[in-house]
Amino acid sequence: MATESRFARDTTVRQIDERRWQAEVAKGWDILGVPNGGYIMAIAARALAGALPHPHPLSVSGYYLERTEPGPAELHCELLRAGKTVSSACLRFMQGGRERARFLASFADLASQAGPSFVDETPPQLPAPAQCERHVMPVNISERLDLLTPPGQASWLEGKTGEHAEHTGWIALSEGGEPDPLSLLLFADGFPPAVFARFGPTGWVPTLDLAVQVRALPAPGHILGRFRTRYLTDGQMEEDGELWDSRGRLVALSRQLARFRLPERQ
Amino acid sequence: MATESRFARDTTVRQIDERRWQAEVAKGWDILGVPNGGYIMAIAARALAGALPHPHPLSVSGYYLERTEPGPAELHCELLRAGKTVSSACLRFMQGGRERARFLASFADLASQAGPSFVDETPPQLPAPAQCERHVMPVNISERLDLLTPPGQASWLEGKTGEHAEHTGWIALSEGGEPDPLSLLLFADGFPPAVFARFGPTGWVPTLDLAVQVRALPAPGHILGRFRTRYLTDGQMEEDGELWDSRGRLVALSRQLARFRLPERQ
Repeated sequence: MATESRFARDTTVRQIDERRWQAEVAKGWDILGVPNGGYIMAIAARALAGALPHPHPLSVSGYYLERTEPGPAELHCELLRAGKTVSSACLRFMQGGRERARFLASFADLASQAGPSFVDETPPQLPAPAQCERHVMPVNISERLDLLTPPGQASWLEGKTGEHAEHTGWIALSEGGEPDPLSLLLFADGFPPAVFARFGPTGWVPTLDLAVQVRALPAPGHILGRFRTRYLTDGQMEEDGELWDSRGRLVALSRQLARFRLPERQ
Repeated sequence: MATESRFARDTTVRQIDERRWQAEVAKGWDILGVPNGGYIMAIAARALAGALPHPHPLSVSGYYLERTEPGPAELHCELLRAGKTVSSACLRFMQGGRERARFLASFADLASQAGPSFVDETPPQLPAPAQCERHVMPVNISERLDLLTPPGQASWLEGKTGEHAEHTGWIALSEGGEPDPLSLLLFADGFPPAVFARFGPTGWVPTLDLAVQVRALPAPGHILGRFRTRYLTDGQMEEDGELWDSRGRLVALSRQLARFRLPERQ
C-alpha cells in the first residue's frame, strides 16, 4: 500500500449520515493561524466527491464567511442536480456550530471528458524546477508547499517590487504525493498574493470568494502556476490564476475576489 | 417621475415574507426560448438588494441547474453574513416548484468604497459608439440590447472567423435607461459567445456557472465590453469578460464556465 500523503491525510472526511460529513482541519496549512482557503476548499471537495455521483471537481466556488480554524468541522452537503455528465451541490462548512464557508460546486468525471479543444495562450516560460529557487515565506503553509520560483523573482520580499502584480512558479506538495484535482484546489490559493510583487509583502489579503475550474487530471510532477492581479479598484481586487501540468497542459483556472489595504503610513 | 426602463420593470421583485420574493421572468430576454443567464442573475440580485443591508452586488456567482423559462418565479433568500462593509447571502431561484438556479453573492455599498487602486490593463481601443455597427443576432434578447461593434468585427456571422475567440463592443439597454450594477450583470452575459468569433455561430453554448464582480457604479452611457475564451479544453471553456464605463473605468469582471460542441459533420 502506498503511503498516504500528508495532504491526503489532512483532507480526510468521514461520513456521518446521508448529508453530513466530519473532517479535522489540520494545523500547519495556515497563514498567521487562518487555514488556507484552497485547503478548506479541498476538504469540501473531498466530501462532495463522496456525496456526488461524479468523482472530480469541475467548478468550485467558495464564499468565505468567517475565519476557519484548526480543529473539527462538520460539512453539510446538499445535492442540487445529478445529471448524466455533471452533478452539482451546495456545501456548508461548519465549525463550532457556525457556518464558516459556503460552497457551490459542479462535479464531473475528468477522465472521460470529450469535446473540442482550443488553447490560445502559452504557459509561462520558466526554468525547470531544478533551476528555480525554493520560495519560503514566514507562514506555516510555506512548509507544506514546495514552491519554486525563477532566480530573482522573489526580490519583492526585500522590497524590490516590480511593475506588475504577478507571480509565476512551480508548486508541489513538499512532503510528496503527485498532483490531483484536490491538490489543484490547494495550489490555486497556494502562492503568495500576486499583489505583493507590485506593492511588497504588505500584510493580510483576505479572500472574499474563490472559484476554481479544474479542466484535466494533472500529469505527475510539479505544477506550473501564473497568478496575476490586473484590477485593484478601491481596495478590491481579483487574482486570476492558471495552473499547467508538467506536460504543458492547462489543468485549472482560478479567480478570487480579495481585499487589499496598503499599510498605514507611519 | 422618470419613466421606468423595461429592464427595471422586467426585473421587478415583490416581497412575500421575510425570506421569499416573487418575480415574473419576462418574455423577450431569451436565446431560443431560454432566458439569458445574466438577466436571471439580475432578478436574483434585485431580490438580494432588498434582503441584504447593503445595496449593490459586489460578487455574484450563479450555478444554472435547469433551464429557466418566462413566467412566475419564487426567490428564496438566506442571509449568510451581515458584516459592516460586506454582507453575503444565498438565493434559490424556483420555478414551478423546482430549483432552476442557485446563487451565492456578496453585497456592498459601491458608492462608499475606499482603498488603493492599481489598474494594469487598458480598455480595448474601439471607435466611438456612433462609429460602430449595430450587431443584431437572430435571438430575442438581441432586440433588448443595443450592441455596437467595430466595423467588420461581426464578419464571423458570415463564416469569416478569426484567430482569437474574442468580441469587443459597446452595450446598452436598447430601450434606454442608464447602466447600473444590475444591468452590468445582464451585460456580463449579453454578448454572443466569444467562441463564435473563432468557430462561427455553431449553436447552443450552455452556461454551467457565471460569476460577476462589480467594482464601481458605472457612469452614464454605453458600456465597453471585451469577452474572451482562451481555454477550450475537451468541450469545456471559460469566457472572461471585462466591462468598462464611458469614462474608461473598469466597472465589472465576469467569468463563466460553459460547454461548447462543434456541430456534427454532415
